[in-house]
Amino acid sequence: MAGFAAPAIDNIRIAMLGTGGRGRFFIGMFSRMPGVEITAFYDSEPEAVAKAQEELAKAGKKPAREFTGPDGWKKVMDLGDIDLVWIASPWESHTPYSLAAMRSGKHVAVEVPAAVTLEECWDLVNVSEATRRHCYMLENCCYGEVELLTLSLARQGILGELVHAECAYIHDLRPCKLSEDPKASMAWRGAPSMKRNGNLYPTHGLGPVATYMGVNRGDAMDYLVSVSSAEFSLTAAAIEKYGADHAFAKVKWALGDMNTTLIRTFRGRSIMVQHDCSSPRPYSRINLVSGTKGMLADYPLRMALAPDSHNWLSEAELDKLREERMHPLWRRMKERAAEEGGHGGMDYVMAARLVECLRQGTALDIDVYDTALWSAIGPLSEMSVANRGGTVDVPDFTRGEWTRREPLGLVP
Amino acid sequence: MAGFAAPAIDNIRIAMLGTGGRGRFFIGMFSRMPGVEITAFYDSEPEAVAKAQEELAKAGKKPAREFTGPDGWKKVMDLGDIDLVWIASPWESHTPYSLAAMRSGKHVAVEVPAAVTLEECWDLVNVSEATRRHCYMLENCCYGEVELLTLSLARQGILGELVHAECAYIHDLRPCKLSEDPKASMAWRGAPSMKRNGNLYPTHGLGPVATYMGVNRGDAMDYLVSVSSAEFSLTAAAIEKYGADHAFAKVKWALGDMNTTLIRTFRGRSIMVQHDCSSPRPYSRINLVSGTKGMLADYPLRMALAPDSHNWLSEAELDKLREERMHPLWRRMKERAAEEGGHGGMDYVMAARLVECLRQGTALDIDVYDTALWSAIGPLSEMSVANRGGTVDVPDFTRGEWTRREPLGLVP
Repeated sequence: MAGFAAPAIDNIRIAMLGTGGRGRFFIGMFSRMPGVEITAFYDSEPEAVAKAQEELAKAGKKPAREFTGPDGWKKVMDLGDIDLVWIASPWESHTPYSLAAMRSGKHVAVEVPAAVTLEECWDLVNVSEATRRHCYMLENCCYGEVELLTLSLARQGILGELVHAECAYIHDLRPCKLSEDPKASMAWRGAPSMKRNGNLYPTHGLGPVATYMGVNRGDAMDYLVSVSSAEFSLTAAAIEKYGADHAFAKVKWALGDMNTTLIRTFRGRSIMVQHDCSSPRPYSRINLVSGTKGMLADYPLRMALAPDSHNWLSEAELDKLREERMHPLWRRMKERAAEEGGHGGMDYVMAARLVECLRQGTALDIDVYDTALWSAIGPLSEMSVANRGGTVDVPDFTRGEWTRREPLGLVP
Repeated sequence: MAGFAAPAIDNIRIAMLGTGGRGRFFIGMFSRMPGVEITAFYDSEPEAVAKAQEELAKAGKKPAREFTGPDGWKKVMDLGDIDLVWIASPWESHTPYSLAAMRSGKHVAVEVPAAVTLEECWDLVNVSEATRRHCYMLENCCYGEVELLTLSLARQGILGELVHAECAYIHDLRPCKLSEDPKASMAWRGAPSMKRNGNLYPTHGLGPVATYMGVNRGDAMDYLVSVSSAEFSLTAAAIEKYGADHAFAKVKWALGDMNTTLIRTFRGRSIMVQHDCSSPRPYSRINLVSGTKGMLADYPLRMALAPDSHNWLSEAELDKLREERMHPLWRRMKERAAEEGGHGGMDYVMAARLVECLRQGTALDIDVYDTALWSAIGPLSEMSVANRGGTVDVPDFTRGEWTRREPLGLVP
């Protein structure tokens, strides 16, 4: 599936699986986007389906076919007039839904992470190859303004040869994980923290960095090691919020507060990727890239370039560089992205770019090998953590194709 | 030697081994400090000894006894009227000089790292224990303004229970490593880069972090893993500076540009420590500490505290906190530190505090177990790097004493 392009689809008929907050956001966006039609929904909760219909009604669109109940998603697979299944349901359902969709002849766009076990990662690859269907992971952060700037700088050689990167998902989700209302926003995120210890959500940081470095496209991950701290903050927060006798204060959380994973690539780059959704910290994806000619890091955004690389660029220099070097995709889409929003516009750019590729019948920016690899860091980090940070080889989902591929270019 | 205090020394007679830039800086400082006397020098280079005499002469002090040549340092050990041997020579001589000094009955203050092999680390511990002599590592960064603020915040519970820390020595030393003049400032730093791959200089970042967390005093390091990138930047810089045919462009550097080491402690904390002296990056020690109630990071300095921990404190809030919570040691010494200078005053605070402890006959802030442990991260990281990031157990130099000790308090 490396470089795979499906026949162009002029009008993309989408079925949305999962119509919670995330699914409905994209339903609203697609109701305003040319060449796209939402023709079916599924959610296990009938109220979520009803709210999704309201999104369409607001935009003056006709109602979509709706499915609910625990097995309703399977009926979507039997529909013949769906081109793309968009999956915005909880993590554990991502791979089962994706596999069923591809097997029924539909392309897949699946939220992150696409898989939670190594076996699921291979299943996605094998089924995508066997069915010749796209399996695109909705890694919106690859389309963030700073991430697209970084990609552009990397491709234009401004940072030199890339050597090291750092990225993360640092997002204080204690309110979600310690919510007494199981239907509260992202309350389901607590359950994996009781069972798994590693990087549960690696792709927001890693997707952009892997793209800069050409991982799967000229480079590949060789091995990783991963260390988690113990759990401190969820229990402390539960006691403070509810008292020491509350059920949340007595949970044996499996997940350590901070997980740090180090990855080494075959070309000798190193990548640090972190996960901390329990500590009282400001949000960060870090997005640090260091090369032989300079470096960039975010949160806050700062940059240094040879020969004066001992000092950060001034605000004015940074603004000038950003103006001159911004990725053409962001330039082209930024106005519409500002109107549509979604994490600063990245959600719009991602969706619009995916729709563009499918309508033109070109290869996608993120393919099933990226989808599998970026997701695999979750279970691979768990293996390392469970073994005192022991070395874990990273599978090559491309089966050697990475040596023959070129890094993703700057699409105009 | 845990908690060891030697009899008070009213007038500390110091022999300086190594009178290059670093040694002469402290000779100058001691010539202005009460209760201290520089009574002997050694440097392998006669010119360096002559320049050291000039420092004393400038301050109106009488000349010190001087020793030079390859074996001149051994003669210092035979002197009976030396209380403290201060070692500011290249890395490889630190442990041999320290061992000889302790064996001849003198206390030791040794520049970082105190040792470059694991065997040397144990030698320092064993000889310090056998001779009952101090072996204090001159980890000046433990006395930096931001580091002392961080320690103070940690001890006052402002950050809650400490969970994770990040620290580094990121310092672009390409000009030193690629100098054609072997006597240029720190030109000798290039040689270890040809032989060793790991964190060659871990203590500036790690010393302060270990102190915040009470490592060796209530907690201990359990294991570490370490990954180096390949070497990219020195070769690129050598080619750019001298051309591809120059000897520097053909060196097979052993050291990767970026080394990242992850340490897990017995109490479940994680520490990331980095070393990069080859990349075009602004200087950084990172100094990030994250706890159950908030976090602090430097470069640039920023801080977030519960309950509003999603946002960084404003400049005004940060200034207020700094004013209210600053370490009493910094408060007491900051004016004199500003006059003496030395990396923003930290060199003065370190030296003055060490002199204070020796004159009062109290335990030192940094003991031989800290000296050995912080230095040991160098060779331990090399072992891990050479084994694809394999797990390496960290020795317990305290032989179990860490369980019975209290974290370093806030000295008034």
